[in-house]
Amino acid sequence: MAHFSGKVLALAGGVGGAKLALGLSRILSPDQLTIVVNTGDDETFHGLHVSPDLDTMLYTLAGLSNPETGWGLAGESFRVLEMLNRYGADTWFNLGDMDMATHIRRTQLLREGATLSEVTAELCLKLGVQHRIIPMSDDSVRTFIGTDQGELAMQDYFVRLRCEPTVASVSYMGAEDARPSEGFSHALEEADLVALCPSNPLLSTGPILVLPTVREELARKRSGRLRVAVSPIIGGAAVRGPAARIMTDLGHDATSLGVAKMYQDICDTFVIDEQDAKEAPAIAGLGVKPVTAPTIMNTEEDKVALARIILELGGGFQHDE
Amino acid sequence: MAHFSGKVLALAGGVGGAKLALGLSRILSPDQLTIVVNTGDDETFHGLHVSPDLDTMLYTLAGLSNPETGWGLAGESFRVLEMLNRYGADTWFNLGDMDMATHIRRTQLLREGATLSEVTAELCLKLGVQHRIIPMSDDSVRTFIGTDQGELAMQDYFVRLRCEPTVASVSYMGAEDARPSEGFSHALEEADLVALCPSNPLLSTGPILVLPTVREELARKRSGRLRVAVSPIIGGAAVRGPAARIMTDLGHDATSLGVAKMYQDICDTFVIDEQDAKEAPAIAGLGVKPVTAPTIMNTEEDKVALARIILELGGGFQHDE
Repeated sequence: MAHFSGKVLALAGGVGGAKLALGLSRILSPDQLTIVVNTGDDETFHGLHVSPDLDTMLYTLAGLSNPETGWGLAGESFRVLEMLNRYGADTWFNLGDMDMATHIRRTQLLREGATLSEVTAELCLKLGVQHRIIPMSDDSVRTFIGTDQGELAMQDYFVRLRCEPTVASVSYMGAEDARPSEGFSHALEEADLVALCPSNPLLSTGPILVLPTVREELARKRSGRLRVAVSPIIGGAAVRGPAARIMTDLGHDATSLGVAKMYQDICDTFVIDEQDAKEAPAIAGLGVKPVTAPTIMNTEEDKVALARIILELGGGFQHDE
Repeated sequence: MAHFSGKVLALAGGVGGAKLALGLSRILSPDQLTIVVNTGDDETFHGLHVSPDLDTMLYTLAGLSNPETGWGLAGESFRVLEMLNRYGADTWFNLGDMDMATHIRRTQLLREGATLSEVTAELCLKLGVQHRIIPMSDDSVRTFIGTDQGELAMQDYFVRLRCEPTVASVSYMGAEDARPSEGFSHALEEADLVALCPSNPLLSTGPILVLPTVREELARKRSGRLRVAVSPIIGGAAVRGPAARIMTDLGHDATSLGVAKMYQDICDTFVIDEQDAKEAPAIAGLGVKPVTAPTIMNTEEDKVALARIILELGGGFQHDE
């Protein structure tokens, strides 16, 4: 069977990132793949530490995620939340019962002194996830959205207000003083291939890239390392989520080309959907190699196929005899 | 309708206490009744503050308790606990999903700086409980059981080890430095009738009575105040729980007389079950007035009937208009 022999670092946000990461995990062995996940969306609900993107990744790789939504767990119930609602708590953030256990456990372990990296490794271990899922940082970084309805915490904007406000700015509170997690730094050094997953460039990969040293390190052209990004925009619209709208609000073009411009200093190859083939010449004009491929990932086969294309770009498929 | 016009303070532990308190609450108006509850059983599970006796009282008065067990909520599910188990957490303490919401909310409010009294008032308000349920103290008191299997926290002994170890001692860690809660002190001053509910005298009323000033205050004979205790022992056995065994282990007689001896300095009248009528003379010999009554409370009618007997001892039934 064909295999890629190098080390891969995937940078991911929520559902789109988890889809590609799942594809990569189906091809790569656990020691080959490190998935670094955005924690700028983390929030405290009911006194519990919720890490939405880490959980989406965890549940996806554990085979437990809700196939309807891409986030949350399949077969969830909402008894805890109903009772919290009865107690007058704000319950606009939809936390299921099994999901609540994740937040309870994470919060307990954090309070006992574990780092978020350690907690995440423990949750992965217990759910049988063998590939490394690592938070971008063990320090607190919080994405805030400046809008026409005021400065909003990420989940406030994203879930409570359903991305309705017009966005004037995005900031990453704490990022300046946050260090990339040890696992992230290590993977960044080792990686033969860095994959920027098809995630929101402002809200998902943005917080990761703004961490001290990360963008600088990724911006270095290094022999033997390929940097591949996958566009989260297809045909001028985000596959899911508010990426296109936010990009427009902030003066970017909500196109694959627009995303390529945001990544041009940190990527060698930019994968766009076949629908956007017409943008390839302009992307090439940025000094980034455009590659067209089917990038919509509905089935597991789609996810594995896109992962395979990315790994092939890395030149790494040999035949295991 | 007949009514008792004075103020009542009920001291209660778990299920037995909640039964009598429910009876009292059906007769007395909210401003007449204060229920002070043992918190020596409180424990931290999964990083959450669990107050088993407060919750039993809360759920009972809210009409939400599980009629099969007397504790917990009717119609509970256990999804959170199952997932916590999957994460490798100790899950021998059976916490339901709706119950978990109580602990999540309580822990959150405590962490935000509220006292346990304030949190309890808030939970009562939200569940529509109008009678005051007050923790014995806002300070931490923890009941420990010295046993042949070592020194055990209360829930360790009671739930995990199912009361199986032989008991050598009972201690109340933190009690010396704990103050009775403000609501408790106030009710203690005001009460025309103090009712010691049929709860375990060592594990349930014990922690309440050992708080500084409480026993001294209750030991004072005060004109116009009646102190009534109800025996938790019937026919030499506890109605429920390990009271009889622990009393025996610690050298007390596991009889109503044995309980009367433990309370003789703080009660005027001691209510024993009709089955124990033969113990009445010996109880009278302690200087405590024995009263026989049906004390097994299965139905709501039983609970109200026993409450009514206690209130009548207080001389307080007059006819309205």
